[in-house]
Amino acid sequence: MTKLDEMYDKLTLPTKAKIALVVLDGVGDIATKENGFLTPLEAAKTPIMDKLSREAIQGRMTPVAPGVTPGSGPGHLALFGYDPVDTQVGRGVIEALGLGLELKAGDVAARANFCSLDADGLVTDRRAGRIETEECERLCAILSKKIKKVSNTQIIIQPGKGHRFVVIFRGTGMEGPLNDTDPQREGLPIAESTPLDPSSKKAQKAAKLIKAFYDKALPILKDERPANGFLMRGIAHQPDIPTFEERYKLKAACLAVYPMYKGLAQLVGMDKVEGPQSISEQFNRYLEEYDNYDFFFIHYKYTDMYGEDGNFEAKKKAIEELDEALPILLQKRPDVIAITGDHSTPCPMKGHSWHPQPVLLTSAFSGSDKLDRFTETGANIGSMGVFDAKFLIRHMQAHAMMFDKYGA
Amino acid sequence: MTKLDEMYDKLTLPTKAKIALVVLDGVGDIATKENGFLTPLEAAKTPIMDKLSREAIQGRMTPVAPGVTPGSGPGHLALFGYDPVDTQVGRGVIEALGLGLELKAGDVAARANFCSLDADGLVTDRRAGRIETEECERLCAILSKKIKKVSNTQIIIQPGKGHRFVVIFRGTGMEGPLNDTDPQREGLPIAESTPLDPSSKKAQKAAKLIKAFYDKALPILKDERPANGFLMRGIAHQPDIPTFEERYKLKAACLAVYPMYKGLAQLVGMDKVEGPQSISEQFNRYLEEYDNYDFFFIHYKYTDMYGEDGNFEAKKKAIEELDEALPILLQKRPDVIAITGDHSTPCPMKGHSWHPQPVLLTSAFSGSDKLDRFTETGANIGSMGVFDAKFLIRHMQAHAMMFDKYGA
Repeated sequence: MTKLDEMYDKLTLPTKAKIALVVLDGVGDIATKENGFLTPLEAAKTPIMDKLSREAIQGRMTPVAPGVTPGSGPGHLALFGYDPVDTQVGRGVIEALGLGLELKAGDVAARANFCSLDADGLVTDRRAGRIETEECERLCAILSKKIKKVSNTQIIIQPGKGHRFVVIFRGTGMEGPLNDTDPQREGLPIAESTPLDPSSKKAQKAAKLIKAFYDKALPILKDERPANGFLMRGIAHQPDIPTFEERYKLKAACLAVYPMYKGLAQLVGMDKVEGPQSISEQFNRYLEEYDNYDFFFIHYKYTDMYGEDGNFEAKKKAIEELDEALPILLQKRPDVIAITGDHSTPCPMKGHSWHPQPVLLTSAFSGSDKLDRFTETGANIGSMGVFDAKFLIRHMQAHAMMFDKYGA
Repeated sequence: MTKLDEMYDKLTLPTKAKIALVVLDGVGDIATKENGFLTPLEAAKTPIMDKLSREAIQGRMTPVAPGVTPGSGPGHLALFGYDPVDTQVGRGVIEALGLGLELKAGDVAARANFCSLDADGLVTDRRAGRIETEECERLCAILSKKIKKVSNTQIIIQPGKGHRFVVIFRGTGMEGPLNDTDPQREGLPIAESTPLDPSSKKAQKAAKLIKAFYDKALPILKDERPANGFLMRGIAHQPDIPTFEERYKLKAACLAVYPMYKGLAQLVGMDKVEGPQSISEQFNRYLEEYDNYDFFFIHYKYTDMYGEDGNFEAKKKAIEELDEALPILLQKRPDVIAITGDHSTPCPMKGHSWHPQPVLLTSAFSGSDKLDRFTETGANIGSMGVFDAKFLIRHMQAHAMMFDKYGA
């Protein structure tokens, strides 16, 4: 725990306040000539957010560090208040969470994908001709059936899209990260997975296990074509991080539709509230769960999805749809509301970016930055300034009056 | 010393410039509907600050860390350029300073208050029925007279308001912090004070001494009613921090009216300039002392006081009164002027808060942010941005041309 975290920890008081974090995934954007120098947030009609804005403060958040584009993992960890540089979650873990697998502390997870091998065991196609999802599912089912355990370690195999799947090693005394078994180019054999930190006994154990898993699995696949081998990447363990409740004294619920975000919330110990399939349903479920939790993480995927497509109009529309649903949330208005993204996904870039995402925060103690709208340009002149996303939760706690005075 | 402090240290040049830090305690506020979305600073008529603003830059300062509400101690330490998380000053020390006691490095100070004990030594009233100040003064006088020393350690007792007083242990080889002797609820005996860090030999010595002090003091009080005992809290030593002059090569004067702020200034080695009782007198005294110091800390209490009362009109008026007095300061215009608060004390909250306080800085090298007024909303768009309060002194030094170029 850092000195700063220790200070926050000592100051933290319990609260009866309700806190809502509404994440429009990838909402931040950039104003370009092509789009009339407007961002989707600026172009959208958002009467409800406009109204909130008049009694709110705004700012922009650096998701990780200046210039760094985060994946969904670090983006959300920062929103949840965990330093995304100190708290690294391996790609294998993220992938497993994304497939809806429940991980336990100490699980080692790997992204895997089928490949083609020649008679000498050299990789001839790193993606096995990009086999269909159905074929991947069939092969994973065979492996799952024939390999339940290696030594005392449980093996969990879950197919993904195309040639991709995930392997979980559930045992004891293991840790990541380990080097990939992907040799990165054709004509080479499957690489041996070795600990990134060679002195780690736990990673050595994991490496041995992976070798043993290969020894069992490759013979099973040997007569398959084209997928008679597989490569593993991002081999990492589920980090043992303090839960949201331990860290913030907040009982938290996750209201997300997509498995990845449920997984990330679960990683920090939030309860997954299952069922809702749309933002209206998510807000309605918030109303139902109001008394059961202190903190509500409400995740909206479509702003990111259309940003990735570079579809300005659809991203604008997605923002408008969220705005239209907001009155449901406001039926039992949370004491503290923050509306933001986990990063920017600018339409002109068709992908995540490093641009600080705008944030709006409203509470009885927020005062007003006197801004008529919630936009990137407005957020630039808000009183929160540009700050590290990991501090958003501290701002929210302060507005929920959760911090004792520091010093006399 | 941190790496950054070392760098500043190496770059620091002597200066002939005069620097004034004008602190309107708790000046920052929030704009709420009830107050027409204006803060006291925005509502006040401030022709002098308006004029300064046109040739000044502005920004907002995070007093400690995002969301953290400081007491006056950390608030001022940050203004004086000391990291308020690393440099912690115990409550006992702050209380002693507040009562106007002069502390020396190594002194251990404790907040104390009289309590009532039953025949078995159990606390029956933790505040001794909130005895009058006069009774407290009488009891402190008795204790002072009968206990001058314990072992080789000098004992200094100073009455405060009501049942409160302060005890200073002036010896050698001691340190805090120690646990409170307040058992926190009635029906329990006075707790033993033990070191927070049990391995500290110096804190062990202080703990022994406190026990010996109790052994001497309780028999003296045994026939008093209702105050026949006392509890101690916030037991800490005066930290040995580098003085203002050592750290910044600035000879500094404190022009404050209230003892707490004089004490905090003294803690960092400023000279206390005694006498002035109003802001006009403080500014006039600045004129007189102009040649004797490089740096003037001028403290104005009333903005905080009326903020604590939630009295918007009075806080606004207090700002106007300071503005009216500013022409006195400008008779010999300091080369660098910073006007700010040590934190915000929003009227709607009736207390200190975490909201970043606005700051205005003017010098021959400040340039202009082209703002017509000094307000929270203006400060949001100033060129200083939102920054940690501990860096204000570095900005002031820079504007006094006190820093050599860094690197070639």
